[in-house]
Amino acid sequence: MHFADRLLQACKAKGNALCAGIDPRWEQLPIEIRRRHSAGTLDAMAGAIEEFSLRVLDIVAPHVPVVKPQSAFFEACGPAGMLAQQRVLAKARSLGLMTILDNKRGDIATTAEAYADAGFAGTLHDGRRLPVWHADALTVNPYLGRDAVEPFLVSARRCDAGVFVLVRTSNKGAGQFQDLRADGKPVYQHVAEAVAAWSAENLGVCGFGDVGAVVGATHPAELARIREWIPNVIFLIPGYGAQGGSAADTAAGFRADGAGALVNSSRGLTACFKPEDPNWESAIDRATRAAAQDLLQATPMHALKR
Amino acid sequence: MHFADRLLQACKAKGNALCAGIDPRWEQLPIEIRRRHSAGTLDAMAGAIEEFSLRVLDIVAPHVPVVKPQSAFFEACGPAGMLAQQRVLAKARSLGLMTILDNKRGDIATTAEAYADAGFAGTLHDGRRLPVWHADALTVNPYLGRDAVEPFLVSARRCDAGVFVLVRTSNKGAGQFQDLRADGKPVYQHVAEAVAAWSAENLGVCGFGDVGAVVGATHPAELARIREWIPNVIFLIPGYGAQGGSAADTAAGFRADGAGALVNSSRGLTACFKPEDPNWESAIDRATRAAAQDLLQATPMHALKR
Repeated sequence: MHFADRLLQACKAKGNALCAGIDPRWEQLPIEIRRRHSAGTLDAMAGAIEEFSLRVLDIVAPHVPVVKPQSAFFEACGPAGMLAQQRVLAKARSLGLMTILDNKRGDIATTAEAYADAGFAGTLHDGRRLPVWHADALTVNPYLGRDAVEPFLVSARRCDAGVFVLVRTSNKGAGQFQDLRADGKPVYQHVAEAVAAWSAENLGVCGFGDVGAVVGATHPAELARIREWIPNVIFLIPGYGAQGGSAADTAAGFRADGAGALVNSSRGLTACFKPEDPNWESAIDRATRAAAQDLLQATPMHALKR
Repeated sequence: MHFADRLLQACKAKGNALCAGIDPRWEQLPIEIRRRHSAGTLDAMAGAIEEFSLRVLDIVAPHVPVVKPQSAFFEACGPAGMLAQQRVLAKARSLGLMTILDNKRGDIATTAEAYADAGFAGTLHDGRRLPVWHADALTVNPYLGRDAVEPFLVSARRCDAGVFVLVRTSNKGAGQFQDLRADGKPVYQHVAEAVAAWSAENLGVCGFGDVGAVVGATHPAELARIREWIPNVIFLIPGYGAQGGSAADTAAGFRADGAGALVNSSRGLTACFKPEDPNWESAIDRATRAAAQDLLQATPMHALKR
């Protein structure tokens, strides 16, 4: 089934479009987990972030349709961290969650193909494909242009996966290059329009394509404008919660039927407790339900409800 | 010692500024190596690319100052591939080579910090730093703006490392966003000028800073223009050789004394033989010497000579 249709089905099944970001930072992990992995090595750190992330998946799986592991925190633990990333993605799949591997890749030609195949279809080995991350979607940086994005589209389309291209990022300094005006419109609009064209090449039944756009909730005016420009593109909206975006700030990203956007919360869910709190699992459970409720009240997401 | 001074010293010691790109693709590896790693798993592939890359390091180390492992091909072999990447970087260091880990990272805030610390200063663990890739330089994507590049500069400056920011990439479609004209100049010029400003914050004795620019040899006119705009920035020039750039096309990247640029060749060195050729090591040795000679004749690189 087409990526966008799978995503919409997953959102309807859970009654919301909340994406749980998995950002496991050592210093924010529960003390009880850190104590069990206290050797002071990268491998021990990897063991800790893996244990934490797997437990988070069990907690959020009943509530959310999608999880987004942040690759940087796995890479920070070296090769063992990348093994943890692989296991976290595998467990998410086994729990019926859709997965966005947030690794913001971008390169050219066969190099891009190597990243893309690792993310999606699997690395080619004498005619067979060996799955590496096996994600439902990756995040991709557009700076290198269409021919650099192309290998990601090709690999994603082999397995009904999707790509989220950075359009307007959620950081304060995002505008330095993204807001430069060329031919009367900002660079991020040029990128958004390119994303819409790529997305239109492969539309699902729901009317959305398999190339989405990352648009930060921290820029609600831009979010609303971009939604008008590119109606067939799914938005992945970071910046809700800890980064300062409100639920209402994300509302303009949705179509009236609640389709078309995913709102991510990372620290708001997985760093919502003090490390010494023995009831950290309940805290994550409560924070996840609360975020979903908050978004349901403030956005068209409620139209997805079971 | 400052990154730029270390780099210049390394180039003078070898008498050239050739960067050997390590792009280990399974289908281009020597048959003898593939036969020893024929289990058909990602781990076996990782073993093969590791063996090949380590042997390549021994071959190129007497001739070149710098190697550039392409992370995508290590990631394509999964966690074991990332372990191979770590070992390749470690061996390069032990051979006295400078290392550019070509992973084109780019993210915001603490996420960028996690990538940067993995690349440079080491992941922070209860006040200690655990080295991950321990590279002398990383490649970084500028689309997210200065505050996203900042964590890479901070981490690099803790250990006299450097950052190469994508300015004008070597692919055919590079211009789609990079050539958009804003305020009378292309986006890549805006990026180049930002890179020059970041670089000027920390200049070495040689007059170059610790923030370099990736500028493709496949666009010689742009290369010459960018060199005029930003004289204090070191160029990393891909696209020479297999991608179609000639040695003469890279000449404008250098200062008259041969400093200021590194020319990369990947496939031209590490895929210069047929997989069934038993003398592939001699072929790489010859190709490396020939590339250095070619560049010495056509660029100011000869001024570096011992």
